[in-house]
Amino acid sequence: MTTSDKRYMALALGLASRGLGQVWPNPAVGCVIVKEGRIAGRGWTQPSGRPHAETIALEQAGSLAKGATAYVSLEPCAHHGNTPPCAEALVAAGIACVVSALEDPDPRVAGQGHEKLRQAGIEVATGVMHAEAEGLNRGFLLRVEQNRPLLTLKLASSFDGRIATATGESKWITGPDARRAVHAMRARHDAVMVGAGTARADDPSLTVRGLGVTRQPVRVVASRRLDLPLSSQLASTAKEVPVWICHGPEADSSLVSAWQGIGAKTLVCKTVSGQLDAASILQALAEQGLTRVFCEGGGALAASLLSADLVDDLIGFGAGVTIGAEGQPSIGALGLARLSEARRFRLLSVRSVGSDILHHWTRS
Amino acid sequence: MTTSDKRYMALALGLASRGLGQVWPNPAVGCVIVKEGRIAGRGWTQPSGRPHAETIALEQAGSLAKGATAYVSLEPCAHHGNTPPCAEALVAAGIACVVSALEDPDPRVAGQGHEKLRQAGIEVATGVMHAEAEGLNRGFLLRVEQNRPLLTLKLASSFDGRIATATGESKWITGPDARRAVHAMRARHDAVMVGAGTARADDPSLTVRGLGVTRQPVRVVASRRLDLPLSSQLASTAKEVPVWICHGPEADSSLVSAWQGIGAKTLVCKTVSGQLDAASILQALAEQGLTRVFCEGGGALAASLLSADLVDDLIGFGAGVTIGAEGQPSIGALGLARLSEARRFRLLSVRSVGSDILHHWTRS
Repeated sequence: MTTSDKRYMALALGLASRGLGQVWPNPAVGCVIVKEGRIAGRGWTQPSGRPHAETIALEQAGSLAKGATAYVSLEPCAHHGNTPPCAEALVAAGIACVVSALEDPDPRVAGQGHEKLRQAGIEVATGVMHAEAEGLNRGFLLRVEQNRPLLTLKLASSFDGRIATATGESKWITGPDARRAVHAMRARHDAVMVGAGTARADDPSLTVRGLGVTRQPVRVVASRRLDLPLSSQLASTAKEVPVWICHGPEADSSLVSAWQGIGAKTLVCKTVSGQLDAASILQALAEQGLTRVFCEGGGALAASLLSADLVDDLIGFGAGVTIGAEGQPSIGALGLARLSEARRFRLLSVRSVGSDILHHWTRS
Repeated sequence: MTTSDKRYMALALGLASRGLGQVWPNPAVGCVIVKEGRIAGRGWTQPSGRPHAETIALEQAGSLAKGATAYVSLEPCAHHGNTPPCAEALVAAGIACVVSALEDPDPRVAGQGHEKLRQAGIEVATGVMHAEAEGLNRGFLLRVEQNRPLLTLKLASSFDGRIATATGESKWITGPDARRAVHAMRARHDAVMVGAGTARADDPSLTVRGLGVTRQPVRVVASRRLDLPLSSQLASTAKEVPVWICHGPEADSSLVSAWQGIGAKTLVCKTVSGQLDAASILQALAEQGLTRVFCEGGGALAASLLSADLVDDLIGFGAGVTIGAEGQPSIGALGLARLSEARRFRLLSVRSVGSDILHHWTRS
């Protein structure tokens, strides 16, 4: 592997990341075509997943693709779906060499993309910037391998870890810069999820605003009984931006019909000890194709995701305000007996955002 | 004011800061003597407050002081205390010009230092880097002007703002680097204070370790009934490092005698609705000469200081660990009715410290 291999792959990964939140159920892929030391084509998976990165890069490269090297952040697909497989397109264009970061675990691909290229006489190098590609595709890999999406838990709290006052007032603990940063984070996820309590208390719209995104994230609410107000912002906009409700088997069928009637999707999940089972929620979302879910609380949903060890990334926005012990906790009861049992996350970054702080942790 | 005036004053302020935590009840002062563009002497207030910065700088400068300029971060003293006043020493040494940052509000000085210099024919410029000098001397200024020390509240908590598990386990939420940073912070304060609950639960020693400080901060415990274990680390070391107990008038006189007998100082404070009054505690500490107090919790003492608007700086150490709602809150009940009533602090800095984050806020 040469330094320039790494440089082109880093570029492909950067292009791929533009698709995060926009391409589900597909993976976000980037492709760079290099001919004689010059970039002839660049592409990334387009919103909703088509066209693929390779298609766009090959189109851009045109006849320059002949004899060129293609850098792909994920193994080219080998199966006939809505479009012919990318592996065949690379062969047809006369690509001489393919450098790939990661094998696609999708059983319809799983090495067959690389194999197809080799059989056609293309030189194939794999595993270039493997760890970075895995990081970028974490959500897609989790969906394929564990039947659940990546879960980012974001909490905006006071200095003392409160997400609202005793009476439920939470507008606004953090400032406008932090809220803008949240919108950018929503845009890089396939869905935004909240618990029923937060949906009722805040009546949020959960859309991405002010960033010109092509595809809004799905709005997911976890509500065991599905007893959410049909007059809410989510309900009234369910026809424009998807609303999915994860509810328990005991939800009243008239409520299920009512929500379906206004355009929402309803997903039946298991309950455990009278609560929606967090693993069942994520499984239902993965089965619908979601790869990256951004959970914005509240405390009860956060606690059930943490207890089930389903939180991959933890993001905290912290304000310099003190609310006190009567305020609502950012994370509900976890039932820890010992501190050594507490879940620990590894710090990725910390910085100021306007008047607040932003800290990002990941599964350690 | 020239650029070099500012540069020398910045140096004097830097020297002054070395005394923070070491010089109470005196202010931390720095002095730089400049003769023909070269530094002839530098000094800062020594531990316990003597000698003064000017004395040391003049001694270093020797005969070079004649005709030189002295930069002082605080008005030179004018009163005869344990030593002759610095203003007279500057005159006697033949200093031609004094550049001063701030007038000393101590009624025994209060402009008389500057006046004495002017009367002796010395050119005096005041107010150079005034704001910076005020910031450095905040503790001393608060003691003289408001009869209370500067109060820094430090809390080390989990991601969700908990300082211990439900059973009181708190060792260790944050890591060794954060704990080292706490020791450095203790060293820059005159005293370290905790509430009775923390003293009982953690049995802390509250000393500065591993930093070779000359003068350990006073250990202060706020305990209304003075019902702390006499077998504690604090009790057993009270003869080596000062221990002061702030208690209510109702404390049992035999307990008062017992603590005095082992070398502790006992300070009677007012109580309000069955709790020690935070303002009364700080007043008692100021009357003992303290200028900078570092409070390390727990939640009840933190809440009473915040409620009384007595917190000047707020320092948070945050770990990537989740404890859940049964854990002990970092700040007790504050009795807020509305979010708009909540106290807001302004962010000064945020960074990582080992595996944790450190965020520093100040009164806004």
